[in-house]
Amino acid sequence: MTAKGKVYLVGAGPGDPELITLKALRLIQTADVIVYDRLVSDDILDLIPESAAKINVGKRPHDHPVPQPDINLLLARLADSGNMVVRLKGGDPFMFGRGGEELTELSAKGLVVEVVPGVTSAQGCCAVAGVPLTHRGYASGVRYITGHCRANLDLDFDWQGLADPDTTLVIYMGLANIGEIAGRLIAHGMPRDTPVMAINNGTRLSERRMVSRLDTVAAAVRRALFDGPVLFIVGDVVRLAQQAEIAETGVLDARLASHA
Amino acid sequence: MTAKGKVYLVGAGPGDPELITLKALRLIQTADVIVYDRLVSDDILDLIPESAAKINVGKRPHDHPVPQPDINLLLARLADSGNMVVRLKGGDPFMFGRGGEELTELSAKGLVVEVVPGVTSAQGCCAVAGVPLTHRGYASGVRYITGHCRANLDLDFDWQGLADPDTTLVIYMGLANIGEIAGRLIAHGMPRDTPVMAINNGTRLSERRMVSRLDTVAAAVRRALFDGPVLFIVGDVVRLAQQAEIAETGVLDARLASHA
Repeated sequence: MTAKGKVYLVGAGPGDPELITLKALRLIQTADVIVYDRLVSDDILDLIPESAAKINVGKRPHDHPVPQPDINLLLARLADSGNMVVRLKGGDPFMFGRGGEELTELSAKGLVVEVVPGVTSAQGCCAVAGVPLTHRGYASGVRYITGHCRANLDLDFDWQGLADPDTTLVIYMGLANIGEIAGRLIAHGMPRDTPVMAINNGTRLSERRMVSRLDTVAAAVRRALFDGPVLFIVGDVVRLAQQAEIAETGVLDARLASHA
Repeated sequence: MTAKGKVYLVGAGPGDPELITLKALRLIQTADVIVYDRLVSDDILDLIPESAAKINVGKRPHDHPVPQPDINLLLARLADSGNMVVRLKGGDPFMFGRGGEELTELSAKGLVVEVVPGVTSAQGCCAVAGVPLTHRGYASGVRYITGHCRANLDLDFDWQGLADPDTTLVIYMGLANIGEIAGRLIAHGMPRDTPVMAINNGTRLSERRMVSRLDTVAAAVRRALFDGPVLFIVGDVVRLAQQAEIAETGVLDARLASHA
């Protein structure tokens, strides 16, 4: 009988390979098998030693190469065979990463699972852009939602609560539905000129940022033709990034300038 | 004339020294001066080389050894003298860390500032406790607030929005006001038996965790006599930790068992 292995659910952070934790690096470099997602950047995959097996179970919005139940079975089988398995996920495994589902499934099978947090995309993007998630006089708290919904389902949120101007709103996976989300927020009282920052491939070399307003963001992202993950930051804190950019470049984004 | 230095606002993560990022470690080990907070753990301070100057500007809730404007001036003076300065903060600098204030102040003085994100306490605590921040059927999003308010001010929240049962609520610095917060959430419709996890010194060797309910949490934390930072996780996702603990120990916390 083989001794059972262990599964580590590990956050790979927002993309920049220097933003993984020391623990994530240690586990990546000692694992027998690494099972990874589409959102894990190539620079991070380059940290995996030759000796480890790599399995790509990457998901795309409309194209699920490996369905979640099959991933769960794969992880269980690998650990049952005595492997030290690292399940590597973009960002943090417990923030929209379905890490909870993997944890409960594997724990229910009696497997030992350890969760290793990572810097989530919002924190990575905000750090690079100079946008504090909370800031005295601008936002007393922060809220994270996902703008992605399963096929044919409505976006089901407490819109009144989301429109709270005192809270920074961060939208993960919101590209497809940003127009509807922005429209609903405006309908529930959020000012039309609330600044919105869209960050594409945040913290990676291919990062692109765009600042617009709630009432124009949908058109602006259509024009931007983003490729890869996009995060939206909605709230007055985005004005602070503008100030930093003025200090740095002397230029304020024209779309916001007329309303600053 | 001395070339100007640079200030890095660096997140030290939740406490476990293995949960800092590779970038944070590199900066800590090459800085001329490290200006650090009370929330940075001793294990992380041990990573600072002998050659670097260390300045403690640690703050306690009712005892501010160095006021924020003085910290800003200190950072500016150090950078102006040509130092590479690391401003090291517990968790993430942009999440209740006043990093935004330091960034705007220093940028306004023409200094170069770079922000390095860290794993925030909520993610660290949830990983260790096996509590996903989001989980299908339990919570579609997450919200972070601070329960600390300036002297003589009321806690000023959109309580109706906070009571949303579909969102995990994380309360930073809530120990002093958890009774009032819990009471207001119940008054706005959050079920009395909503599970609450309190994590004291999360991810450190001295970590203590306690699970209770919204209507009993205030009394429970009084009995617990916590020392050090306490984070509260409010929401159904806490039940998932209970399931993991059952799998591990066969024991369910008695306060929740009668309601599971």
